[in-house]
Amino acid sequence: MVTSAVVNTYPLSSYTFGTKEPKMEKDTSVADRLARMKINYMKEGMRTSVEAILLVQEHNHPHILLLQIGNTFCKLPGGRLKPGENEIEGLKRKLTSKLGANSPALVPDWQIGECVAIWWRPNFETIMYPYCPPHITKPKECKKLFLVHLSEREYFAVPKNLKLLAVPLFELYDNVQRYGPVISTIPQQLSRFQFNMISS
Amino acid sequence: MVTSAVVNTYPLSSYTFGTKEPKMEKDTSVADRLARMKINYMKEGMRTSVEAILLVQEHNHPHILLLQIGNTFCKLPGGRLKPGENEIEGLKRKLTSKLGANSPALVPDWQIGECVAIWWRPNFETIMYPYCPPHITKPKECKKLFLVHLSEREYFAVPKNLKLLAVPLFELYDNVQRYGPVISTIPQQLSRFQFNMISS
Repeated sequence: MVTSAVVNTYPLSSYTFGTKEPKMEKDTSVADRLARMKINYMKEGMRTSVEAILLVQEHNHPHILLLQIGNTFCKLPGGRLKPGENEIEGLKRKLTSKLGANSPALVPDWQIGECVAIWWRPNFETIMYPYCPPHITKPKECKKLFLVHLSEREYFAVPKNLKLLAVPLFELYDNVQRYGPVISTIPQQLSRFQFNMISS
Repeated sequence: MVTSAVVNTYPLSSYTFGTKEPKMEKDTSVADRLARMKINYMKEGMRTSVEAILLVQEHNHPHILLLQIGNTFCKLPGGRLKPGENEIEGLKRKLTSKLGANSPALVPDWQIGECVAIWWRPNFETIMYPYCPPHITKPKECKKLFLVHLSEREYFAVPKNLKLLAVPLFELYDNVQRYGPVISTIPQQLSRFQFNMISS
């Protein structure tokens, strides 16, 4: 029986942030994105996506690293698995693509931890649920969120068109308007963990 | 690394429900409750409470057993630990008090599983958070929610002043108005589990 797992969390200041070439979004609108999703579904079946919760601390409070696109939209680093791809390997590939330096020696040795949430998209629509709704036999997407355990020092290379923000749990909590249903309930999903705040 | 734990879930119809003597609430108002909390805090320090998520299934969708008081208020079975009491033993004691038959032979052998959420009360107020807010050094309550694994057949004795409801996840989700912040986000906290729906 697991009552409470311990997660080591290091100060934001112990990490180094550089930049790299832009990573443009594949779609320029929500409608485009849903249309591309539909085409991919015809070819490959249900989409599986994997996203990472990267934790740092400031003032002894956990913060999550989010990628900001433009001035408002925030997302977790991650993305879609290739058909048949292992989810752990796929998440490492996506993290390296989104946040790893171009020099392989500088890329973090991603330690993929616990799956903390699974979301389901029943239709080619934006709405997702934290369960597969009854009577839905062919969900269109399954999105898994994993805790990723960072070492004390890492170098992140942030695509030039994005910003990497460290957002405190208290800012995410109960803030569905700004962060959406998936990201705004991360504080609840992490509540069972004990954070070991290391001040370096 | 734990990616997805499997939880066996049996049909509601495989359980038997009887009644027993009423278990009245200790307080008749929220103000009374907060006042009693304050008095207990002076004597015993931070309150620790433990609550159970008991799962059944209907139509292949998970349902949670909630105790309904009057016509609107719902709560999870559980309660406050005695000072120094072990949380697992304390939750078993509370479950037996709330839902166990008076005849010990009929009381379920409670299998306390994973802690799925921890909530903190920073002040003698109703608001709780899924983290201890920054700058709060003396929280007033810590509430832990545990998954409790039910056997295929059990007998529950429900106090006569309460109703026991099996509420589907899709009813709880995004329904903070009716169920409050703790219960309405249980679907998100359970999303990482794979439910093995056994049709008996």
